[in-house]
This record gives sequence, C-alpha cells and structure tokens, in this order.
Amino acid sequence: MKKDVVLNPWEVSGEIDYDKLIKEFGIQPIRDLPEIFEKNILFRRKTVFAHRDIQRILEAIRDKKPFVMMTGLMPTGKFHIGHMILAQQMIFYQKLGAKIYVAVADIEAYNARAQSLEDSRKIAIEEYIKNYIALGLKPENLEIYFQSERSSDAKKANAYYRLQNLLARYANFNEFKAVYGDISPGKMLSALLQASDMLHPQLEEFEGQIPVIVPVGIDQDPHLRLARDISQRIKNPKFTQLSSTYHFFVPGLKGGKMSSSDPSSYIALTDTPEEAERKIKKYAFSGGRDTLEEHRKLGGNPDVDISFQYLKIFFEQDDKKLAKIYKDYKSGKLLSGELKQILADKLAVFLKEHQKKRKDAEKIIDKFISK
Amino acid sequence: MKKDVVLNPWEVSGEIDYDKLIKEFGIQPIRDLPEIFEKNILFRRKTVFAHRDIQRILEAIRDKKPFVMMTGLMPTGKFHIGHMILAQQMIFYQKLGAKIYVAVADIEAYNARAQSLEDSRKIAIEEYIKNYIALGLKPENLEIYFQSERSSDAKKANAYYRLQNLLARYANFNEFKAVYGDISPGKMLSALLQASDMLHPQLEEFEGQIPVIVPVGIDQDPHLRLARDISQRIKNPKFTQLSSTYHFFVPGLKGGKMSSSDPSSYIALTDTPEEAERKIKKYAFSGGRDTLEEHRKLGGNPDVDISFQYLKIFFEQDDKKLAKIYKDYKSGKLLSGELKQILADKLAVFLKEHQKKRKDAEKIIDKFISK
Repeated sequence: MKKDVVLNPWEVSGEIDYDKLIKEFGIQPIRDLPEIFEKNILFRRKTVFAHRDIQRILEAIRDKKPFVMMTGLMPTGKFHIGHMILAQQMIFYQKLGAKIYVAVADIEAYNARAQSLEDSRKIAIEEYIKNYIALGLKPENLEIYFQSERSSDAKKANAYYRLQNLLARYANFNEFKAVYGDISPGKMLSALLQASDMLHPQLEEFEGQIPVIVPVGIDQDPHLRLARDISQRIKNPKFTQLSSTYHFFVPGLKGGKMSSSDPSSYIALTDTPEEAERKIKKYAFSGGRDTLEEHRKLGGNPDVDISFQYLKIFFEQDDKKLAKIYKDYKSGKLLSGELKQILADKLAVFLKEHQKKRKDAEKIIDKFISK
Repeated sequence: MKKDVVLNPWEVSGEIDYDKLIKEFGIQPIRDLPEIFEKNILFRRKTVFAHRDIQRILEAIRDKKPFVMMTGLMPTGKFHIGHMILAQQMIFYQKLGAKIYVAVADIEAYNARAQSLEDSRKIAIEEYIKNYIALGLKPENLEIYFQSERSSDAKKANAYYRLQNLLARYANFNEFKAVYGDISPGKMLSALLQASDMLHPQLEEFEGQIPVIVPVGIDQDPHLRLARDISQRIKNPKFTQLSSTYHFFVPGLKGGKMSSSDPSSYIALTDTPEEAERKIKKYAFSGGRDTLEEHRKLGGNPDVDISFQYLKIFFEQDDKKLAKIYKDYKSGKLLSGELKQILADKLAVFLKEHQKKRKDAEKIIDKFISK
C-alpha cells in the first residue's frame, strides 16, 4: 500500500509520488544523474530530489565548461546539521569545478529581523563560514560576500546594486505578495536584492552569461520562481535561465522543524559529542514501540525515526550498512536505544574531527571573505 | 484688494499669503537672509520663497563651516530656462563654499520612464552638465554622479546603495502611496534611492554628518518630507535633519507648465537667439490688452505677462529697470510687442554668450563627472 506523501519542508515520509510533485510544484524529479552525483548520498538517497533545468549544469560538467553554484546564508542562530545539506552541496559543486557564490543576507536580516550588520557579520563568520571551511570548502573559485558590502571592486559593487534597481522595473506587487505574503518596503528590497544575488554572477563585471545552479529547500521555490520570471523579462543584460535543485529539510530532533531558536531541536556543529549524545537520547523522536516486548515482536518504524533519518541523510555512507540497520530496526532486532547509540557514536567521531578542523579554519578565515 | 493666491507649481500670481503657506505646507517663508543671498535675484525677488531649517545652513555660512548642497537631475528632454533655477542655485551655493552633490536620476528614468541608462547618460552630459558648466559651475567641490554607478571608489559605492537598502526598513507603504500615488516596485526603489541621494553625503564614507540643503520646486516637498521623516527614524548612522528651500516653477511660454515635450512651451539653452525671439513673439502669453487703444488707455498686466516674468526671474538684474518696465507696462506706456522685444534682446545676448561657453565646456566635461 502506498502511503500518503508528506511534503512539509521538514518532514518526508511515505513513498514520494514524483508525478504528483511535478504537477503541484512544476519541478522535475531528478533522474539519470551522472555517476559523480550518485556517489554523493544526498543525491543517491534523494534528499536532493527534484530540479528545474539541471541539464544545463550537467552539460557544463560534461563539456568541462564553467558554471556557477549560487547560494546564500541567513546569519542568525547556530549552524546545525540542517545547514549541512547546503554546505555539502557547495563543496560538492566546488569539487566539480563550479565557481561558488555565497551571499551573506545581512541586508535581509536587517530589514526582516532587525538584526544589526555588525551582529550579522560576526554570526556569519563564527557560525557559518568557519563551519564551511571545516566541512571542506576551499578558498579558490569562491566568492563569499555580504549583501551590505558587495565588493571592494567598485565596478562589481556598482553592477550588483544596479541590477537590484533595474530588476525592480520588471517586478510587480502581486507576485511579491504571492511569495512573501504581507510585504513591506524592507521585504521588497530584500527580495530584489536576493534576485540580484542569484542573477548578478552572469553580469559582465562578474562571470558573464553562464549557467548558474541554485540549490534550495523545497519551500524556497517561490523565491526562485520569482528570480527566474523577472530574469526573462529584462532584455539587457540577457540572463541564461537559472537552474535549481530542491532538497527536503533535515527534520528536527523531536520530529518537527529544526529551529535555531530551540536547541533541543538541533545538533549544532559546535555541540560536544557528549552534548550531542545527550540530546539524541533525550529528544530524538523514535520509531520504536512503547515496550521492549512490542518492539521485539512488531518491529520499529525507521521511516519516522529521526536517528535513522540522520544516518540516512548524513552519517552512514555505506548503503549496505544502512539497509541492514533499516531491516534490523523494522524487524525488531535493533532496539531504539541501540539505534540512537549508532547515531551518537557516528556523530561523536564526526564532531570531534570537525571541531578540530574548525580550530584550524580560524587561521585561514580571511582567505574566504571577498574583499 | 488682495487677489487669490495661485499656487500651481508653474503659476504664481496674486500676492502671496505667507501665513497661509506656512499652514498648508508646513514650510517657512524666507525672511531676513544675509546680504549675500539678497544680492541674488532668485532670493531677492522671492522666486525661492520658502524653506525648512535653513538656519542650519546660514549658521554654517556665517561660521565658515562645511555644508553640502544636494540636488538631482532627471535626464530627459532639452535643458531649458526652467532648469536654470536649480543650476543657478548650485552655482550660488558653490561660490558660498558648499560641496555640491548632483545625482543623475538614471535609475529613476529607467524604472519610471523606461529610458535606457545609455540614453540617460548622453542626455545628462549633452543637455545638463554642459549647460551647468557654461552657467558657471566649477569642477572643484563637486560630485556629479549617476545613480546606476555611484562611484569608482568601492567604499563609497557600497555605502550609497547600502543606505538605500537600510532605509527601506524605516519606510512604510502608506507614506509612499501618499507621495507617489500608484506605487510600483520600480517607483519604490527609485524613491528609496532618492532618499539615499539626499542623505548619503552625511555618511562617514562621504562628508560625515553635515548640514545639507536641498533646493526643490514647491511640488517636490512630499519627497523631501519623506526623506526627512525616514532619516530621523534610523538611529545608526545619525543624520542631521535636511534643510530645504522651495521655489516656484518658471511658467511656460504659453502660461502653463514648461514642458520638455512641447518646444513651444520653453526656451532651450541651445535655441538660437533668432529661434528664441520667434518663440517669444509667437507664443509668449501677454498681459497686454486686445487693442493698442485699450492698452494705451487701461495698461497691461505684468503679473500675468510671461515676458515680464522671465525678465523678473532671470534676465533683468537691475531692480530699478525692472520696476520701470513694470510701471510702464501697467500704465500702458510700454506695449506688449515692446516688452517682448526687451526680453528677446536680453535673451539674445545671454544665449549667444552661453552657447560660446557651452562649446568651451565640451573640452573640460570629464572633470565634472565623478569617477
């Protein structure tokens, strides 16, 4: 029996009906990816599950032509494992030869969350960029920039903000409202700056017209659609239509959304291994049965078990081992506590190693911020 | 008997009731100006007739402290005598020691009038900047810049556009609607960029906090009020409240608005003396009577006569001579044709001299555009 598909950004369960997705979102399921993608568990296990116009990127990779991966970060709260999906894609595309653009959305944080530019800068560096480096991002072929200070190259700075202003002519209020709901001037400028973020790599002052891929969470598609639509209305300069991929959110420990404002919902990359283990044991939603007897008899449900999800998305690279965990849990052979311990042990190794790399990152951080 | 005050931007008639003005517009009549202002006929004859917070500027002049005069130009159509009011104030304040900022509103022309940046650049240089130079603007203490390309100094460029984006947080839709009526995203970005135009001279990347005077036509006060209001809501950076003066528009030849799209409404600064004379004789609205006999008997009305207005605003510097013309016209001694000839002769001298200076301006134009 096919279960109902749950398509909350933070919850994936049931068997995904790709045809329904295509119809509802107007996006395409990811199929027939080159081997290099299949080696990455995010793609192989369909955490990144859909796309628009990815063929343009696949062609660039095949033909060894330049392309750009563009993404952004909202500099608020702690960097947690939920943020790793994008970070790992950055690193993946950088290894594939893409030039990586990362916008620190400090203007958006200012206008939509009343956070000062200074605080945004600190959080971006301390929480995000250091973790990117520790995860493997390289300073070559990379532009990390702040929306409030695009470049120390005046030609680039002028061009980026000019684009924000020119795009305004091709936008209308109704489409903003459709995406953002109640829209304020601050939100509107942020939205247009975000469109400029996605499109400006194609300006002559940057890379010139070039394929650009923007990996986003499935809930972010309206933003992308807005940038795609506006980009095709402006005639000068010309933009190659944006490509995009869509991923599910990593669920929070308790099963809902992973939220920076609730430490019991996430594992931060700066949590100690002990703290991570404590959180998993205390909070991680389990697909196990109420009693040991029931569990042994009826088996657990790995599809809703958060520990299993984390192993699947990030921490168990080996498909066979993952399949065995799945099978053993489902059969009742593997208990919830044991499953949690598998995750805690994997996480302990990861966090220890990561935090060592994070210390090293501090020494080279300056290389990673565009001047 | 006191006539009704007509306060169309392009029509001044009747005796101005300053108390009423203060009440309706919330602005102050200009009174007790220093002698240096009184020597300028724009101030002495109250073409520039009202202000907000001018005392801050008068104090700066008195104490020989730095101050800024900020203005903008919309790069469309021909530069005509109507544009001279602002140009003459630029030159006046520059001589008084002000640093002059001039924004070429090419983003606004793009968003509100669908004019390309290239066309705006050409028109700004050919029509506006060359005429400014010929009228006496100096390249020292001057920043003429394009909204679409603020500066070749990246710190300045980033700061100017950053301010546009930060100001958005402090604006709301209703006040935009009150000023601009039907508001589009393009108009909104232009409005915020205009606010940044007026305020950015006070950023640390430019002059730092400093008194700024913005001379505008009386119809432009809502824009100024918007910038004033928003500037006092933002706490970081801090802005000294803007000062402003208000002038009446120069009426068109036929008595209505002087419009760049109707050559029979204006004298362009590139019109030949012959062309100017022809236009005056053919189009200039006359305050004279229908017949010679009536005119001799009842006299003309200089207060509605366009030729007299032009002499008063620009071309007859000598108060005694102007008073004599006024008296002679009112008494019927001076005929309409004769009054028109006085203006045509004055204009011929001015245009001939101006157009010679305009040729010289071409050689030094590069010194006048901010890099």
